[in-house]
Amino acid sequence: MSSPDSGPASEPDGGGLFSRRRLLGAAGVSAAVVGAAGAGALAGRASAADPQAAMNAAVPFRGVRQAGIVTPAQDRMHFATFDLTTDRRDDVIKMLREWTHMAERMTAGAQAARDGAVGLNPYSPPTDTGEALGLPASALTLTIGFGPSFFGRDGKDPLGIAGRRPELLADLPKFPNETMDPSQCGGDICIQACANDPQVAVHAVRNLARVGFGTAAVRWSQLGFGRTSSTSHAQQTPRNLFGFKDGTANIMAEDTGTLDEQVWVRDGDGPDWLTGGSYLITRRIRMRIEPWDRTTLIEQERVIGRAKGSGAPLGRADEFDALPLDLTGDDGEPVIDPLAHVRLASPEDNDGVQILRRGYNFTDGTDGFGHLDAGLFFIAFVRNPATQFIPMQTKLAKRDLLTEYIVHTGTGIFATPPGIPDGDPDAYWGSTLLEG
Amino acid sequence: MSSPDSGPASEPDGGGLFSRRRLLGAAGVSAAVVGAAGAGALAGRASAADPQAAMNAAVPFRGVRQAGIVTPAQDRMHFATFDLTTDRRDDVIKMLREWTHMAERMTAGAQAARDGAVGLNPYSPPTDTGEALGLPASALTLTIGFGPSFFGRDGKDPLGIAGRRPELLADLPKFPNETMDPSQCGGDICIQACANDPQVAVHAVRNLARVGFGTAAVRWSQLGFGRTSSTSHAQQTPRNLFGFKDGTANIMAEDTGTLDEQVWVRDGDGPDWLTGGSYLITRRIRMRIEPWDRTTLIEQERVIGRAKGSGAPLGRADEFDALPLDLTGDDGEPVIDPLAHVRLASPEDNDGVQILRRGYNFTDGTDGFGHLDAGLFFIAFVRNPATQFIPMQTKLAKRDLLTEYIVHTGTGIFATPPGIPDGDPDAYWGSTLLEG
Repeated sequence: MSSPDSGPASEPDGGGLFSRRRLLGAAGVSAAVVGAAGAGALAGRASAADPQAAMNAAVPFRGVRQAGIVTPAQDRMHFATFDLTTDRRDDVIKMLREWTHMAERMTAGAQAARDGAVGLNPYSPPTDTGEALGLPASALTLTIGFGPSFFGRDGKDPLGIAGRRPELLADLPKFPNETMDPSQCGGDICIQACANDPQVAVHAVRNLARVGFGTAAVRWSQLGFGRTSSTSHAQQTPRNLFGFKDGTANIMAEDTGTLDEQVWVRDGDGPDWLTGGSYLITRRIRMRIEPWDRTTLIEQERVIGRAKGSGAPLGRADEFDALPLDLTGDDGEPVIDPLAHVRLASPEDNDGVQILRRGYNFTDGTDGFGHLDAGLFFIAFVRNPATQFIPMQTKLAKRDLLTEYIVHTGTGIFATPPGIPDGDPDAYWGSTLLEG
Repeated sequence: MSSPDSGPASEPDGGGLFSRRRLLGAAGVSAAVVGAAGAGALAGRASAADPQAAMNAAVPFRGVRQAGIVTPAQDRMHFATFDLTTDRRDDVIKMLREWTHMAERMTAGAQAARDGAVGLNPYSPPTDTGEALGLPASALTLTIGFGPSFFGRDGKDPLGIAGRRPELLADLPKFPNETMDPSQCGGDICIQACANDPQVAVHAVRNLARVGFGTAAVRWSQLGFGRTSSTSHAQQTPRNLFGFKDGTANIMAEDTGTLDEQVWVRDGDGPDWLTGGSYLITRRIRMRIEPWDRTTLIEQERVIGRAKGSGAPLGRADEFDALPLDLTGDDGEPVIDPLAHVRLASPEDNDGVQILRRGYNFTDGTDGFGHLDAGLFFIAFVRNPATQFIPMQTKLAKRDLLTEYIVHTGTGIFATPPGIPDGDPDAYWGSTLLEG
């Protein structure tokens, strides 16, 4: 009574993948039916020829950097953090090795493991949960990070890595205007799953959680239904739930010099194992959309500092025009308010500091008082939290006009190691930390 | 400092709509830039020529039936219920008129109101919240329903319609194996927003909630990230979070005879105002995915009664083969277990009863015990809850093998009136009930 769809499979290292679509004999998007090695090239071709094919294609898992940081921001996200439930270092390494193997398969559009949902042995639990069968790779990226508590807590050091914690990897300070829910903060490990199909992102997190049983348990998770940042000049700027274009002035994948300066941890910045990685910071930002929606257009635009329709800075006509921070109106007042969000977040007002943003709109039901619980799940990647995110957020939390309309309810900080090199069969998520 | 995007607009009744895309001068999908009158025809053409254009196109709002019932199931959903916060009948009618006007505009791809997010008067709050600016209609449908409590409660009848409540519109009984969370049950009014872009669905619910302020408040809302039913033979069957194809044997839009028999309320079935409408039943079904994932493939397939890969009934090869309910194996036992889900839910086992399903996968963070809070938001449309849903669910809750792996945590029942006729300027959501 096993499924008639079962068939032979080969491992990624062998060059061929057990494609979810080939398995089912589905017609359609050929971009998904490729091995990891060929995915990058095909994605590039698909992008030029057919936007939908690019949305469906695979993003290479291996490389100098982890995917999912400067990868063009996918439309949907499922973010989860995990706490270790064991003190055994070997079990943690075993899980991370298995996660890496699964992540490489799933990002290529394959099932989580060789046998998969309809494996050859019907008397075993399936090694893939099956809900992504027939779906293309959908540009899935899986990005791992390690929180401060991964390096031990309460004076204990079960993994023997307490001495390898970067000094900069410390819980963020309490900022003004936050009401943190501890059940939505922190975590030993984070997984950021981004994809153009939410079912593909949820499937990936769910399968990692499945095999983590006994070693790590889900601490919290957040679904983001729509992206609010672009990370490539090729993308159109999306809108957040205040109705404004968001991320116009983001660092883009094409800005390699700025990425090197602001995002990637360099040799000498900290422990060697993190060189080529970054710090990932999450903020769950509840938006007070009801008072916002009763605010005049002119006030909304004053708060943000941009026109709501075009996204252009106030006083300018085009979205991508530079901020005219010194421009004054007929009344002699600055056209962009001294406390406008765009001004306070600008490099000019932050000693040149920039952060790479990757945000997603969320709605999580209601708050129990007749309002939608909705907002922005903010993700930032920075080279140095202490000189980039913390001073900027300290200032914004105190002075930004937008502060009246938002409250931060969740936070996390994670060190994201460099990528898994091509052709290295021994590397796994965290191996530079745990094997170095 | 108002946006340079502002411009003149015309009302839907005047034949032209203030398109979100035309407003912004965005290049791209022309299917969204059509008036309501032409949307149907264009959607039809787009469907044949270009699947993506069909995903983006507008679904006609007006018609004999409400859209969103037999409309080909869109990929994403935002479902919300509201409680009245006023006893004033006139205010309720005013809100329903405004909602109807906004719904017609938004489903056509226009902003919620004429001036919109970047209206002519910057000293007023925008009449659209803006987060869908630039997005196509995305096949948005908005479907309204009225719960038992809309007709009064605690012996009070503020709207003067207690006598018009259909006898069949009553809170569902308590079934076995449910742990209801009152904050996820019931509601005076429901709005089902389905669209192929979740931002478009969330935008619609949020704007209705916005103008409802003072008259109705959100009671609960549910985001569904992926559809689990097809409602047209033209659609591929999607998968639920147990990894199985779901809805293979659904009533399809093409099955007009079955729809007339099983879904649409007929003349004489109850009060005249509901003739041509239906009953909408919601069940928030939490899936116990962790024990399920540790179950063998053969057991999963026994529980469901279908092969996991192909979706074919056990003992048959093709997904759409009829269930071989009488087939026995070499051991003399039924190939489809006597308590398999597909058997107990089949028309053959329910005196011919069928229900129209419209389900969505959800994940709402975690349960606080290391597990994802995930499952299926089940929506059914039936002609008669008492002879269709209630007996079927009573049996399933007691006997279905699947019951070991699920728990129902939310419930609701709503009467969905017939559609708003073409060319009737006085009709609004609920007018057959409130004006009849």
